[in-house]
Amino acid sequence: MQNKEIRFASRPAGMPSAETFQFVETDLPQPGDGEVLLRTLYISVDPYLRGRMRPGRSYVAPFEVGDVISSGAVAEVVESRAPQFQKGDVVTGMMGWRLFNVAKASELRKIDPQLAPVTTSLGVLGMPGLTAYFGLLDIGAPKEGETVVVSGAAGAVGTTVCQIAKLKGCRAVGIAGSDEKNRYLEQELGVDATINYKNGDVAQALKDACPKGVDVYFDNVGGEVSDAVMPLLNHGARLIICGQISLYNLDKQDIGPRPQPYLLVNSALMQGFIISDYASRFPEGVTQLAGWLGAGKLKYAETIVEGFENTPQAFIGLFSGENLGKQIVKV
Amino acid sequence: MQNKEIRFASRPAGMPSAETFQFVETDLPQPGDGEVLLRTLYISVDPYLRGRMRPGRSYVAPFEVGDVISSGAVAEVVESRAPQFQKGDVVTGMMGWRLFNVAKASELRKIDPQLAPVTTSLGVLGMPGLTAYFGLLDIGAPKEGETVVVSGAAGAVGTTVCQIAKLKGCRAVGIAGSDEKNRYLEQELGVDATINYKNGDVAQALKDACPKGVDVYFDNVGGEVSDAVMPLLNHGARLIICGQISLYNLDKQDIGPRPQPYLLVNSALMQGFIISDYASRFPEGVTQLAGWLGAGKLKYAETIVEGFENTPQAFIGLFSGENLGKQIVKV
Repeated sequence: MQNKEIRFASRPAGMPSAETFQFVETDLPQPGDGEVLLRTLYISVDPYLRGRMRPGRSYVAPFEVGDVISSGAVAEVVESRAPQFQKGDVVTGMMGWRLFNVAKASELRKIDPQLAPVTTSLGVLGMPGLTAYFGLLDIGAPKEGETVVVSGAAGAVGTTVCQIAKLKGCRAVGIAGSDEKNRYLEQELGVDATINYKNGDVAQALKDACPKGVDVYFDNVGGEVSDAVMPLLNHGARLIICGQISLYNLDKQDIGPRPQPYLLVNSALMQGFIISDYASRFPEGVTQLAGWLGAGKLKYAETIVEGFENTPQAFIGLFSGENLGKQIVKV
Repeated sequence: MQNKEIRFASRPAGMPSAETFQFVETDLPQPGDGEVLLRTLYISVDPYLRGRMRPGRSYVAPFEVGDVISSGAVAEVVESRAPQFQKGDVVTGMMGWRLFNVAKASELRKIDPQLAPVTTSLGVLGMPGLTAYFGLLDIGAPKEGETVVVSGAAGAVGTTVCQIAKLKGCRAVGIAGSDEKNRYLEQELGVDATINYKNGDVAQALKDACPKGVDVYFDNVGGEVSDAVMPLLNHGARLIICGQISLYNLDKQDIGPRPQPYLLVNSALMQGFIISDYASRFPEGVTQLAGWLGAGKLKYAETIVEGFENTPQAFIGLFSGENLGKQIVKV
């Protein structure tokens, strides 16, 4: 049996394209002691992977040209040479974009398909959910009655942030890129007000949506959308820098109004973070998120593209906002 | 006897000038019950006062045209109608730019001229010293061996920040606007490396001065000087936004590279603050600063201009960096 993998073919200038990726057929790998052979079921495509396509340092080591792209995935154990797993188990972890992977058992986590759909381990119960949970609650520390603004509100992280803000008794204001997404946010998730940043005057719309100013800003997007938030900050505001997706494909440095003067006059805090900063507290986060999910207090959306061959396109689509909620590829 | 006062004559566009101020002779005021008549000895001129000259909100309420300018000052009690003070006492507090002020006893603090020169209550033992103390230690939380970069390093706040960084076992790197100031920082205050931002390539000089990157950045200046710090941030860096003096006289919005991407990839924190956020902890700060001062571990510099009529010029001189350490007017 042959394997297939997607390699990093060339560093993109600007938006990644089909030329960024190369499909290669290889031999099926064999697991060694302590390893398992995995058949990939679902692949998570995430905006942060764009950062790994740059040569410089980002969150994590950059991809080198020729590397197999890797990201979070869900897979089924086909053959096990590790006592922790047996054939048929479903596991999650970081995996290469391959039909079959060999992985160390120690780097995988078994998931229970009875508890929740297995794809939630890539979304609301996985990295995006934990990112929302720790970013909003630990850095943002929202208090009842405060106004929480979320950019990229209809994405995997944003949808969860909006709902946790509501669970904490806050006014949630979502910024997204289509009226359809905003309808979902308001009607399905109970978001109090939404703004389509592609329509008209974002600054004025945001002002109207935040009559008491902004206490917490959860930023997935950066750039001009964030600029519009700054004049509305309240004293002691907290700004969580979770992502800057509007900038990831910029070829040159991002230029705009520096936010420091706004932070200064409002004694405001701006904090960047990466979810691995909270690794020691993941169990707490998963338990809480699963509790809300089980109690029907937390919903999630997924956009599932079918077919391994569509993985690059699913990734590229993140930057034009084609996804509602978590973007996943069903292999 | 006549009194004299300095009023806010017109809102400056750009740099304040003589036209911003108006000298007016008035009658000597009379203290009521619970009040004292004060003869001004020293006036503190501070960069933040520029913010009060704008119509919009800043730290504090803006000056209205026609208002007497006010700031921190040291004065002698000439007549007391309050039990807390008697004639001859030396006090500090917020006062109008006048030869004589009437003030409520409850808004003044008595100072002991035997303990330290009375001008220190406007500098190292006053607002600038406390700003350095709480900003660096509470927000910056520098650890031994870390690198602390200070912009506006030769000012009243910056000189204190540099020395506290050294007391905490850090590498202190100062950025100032003249070689003379930098000699003072290195030779008198023990700063490890300095950069004259008016000379050559600040980004390269900063890189050379910070071989282990930047853990803490105490920013009094903003703008391009701060831009040069961003690429050097270490994981978990803390940026204290204390002032943005390079921008205070800008007529238009400050544009430059937004810092969010740097905060994101380094899990870095940027926090604005105003010293009044720490009002409840002032006694702790003054005690610690006075202890270091008494033990010879903390030095301070003052630039004293003589003559009430030179108060506006002393204020304007802050923006071209004419002062080393605390700028004070001796009335």
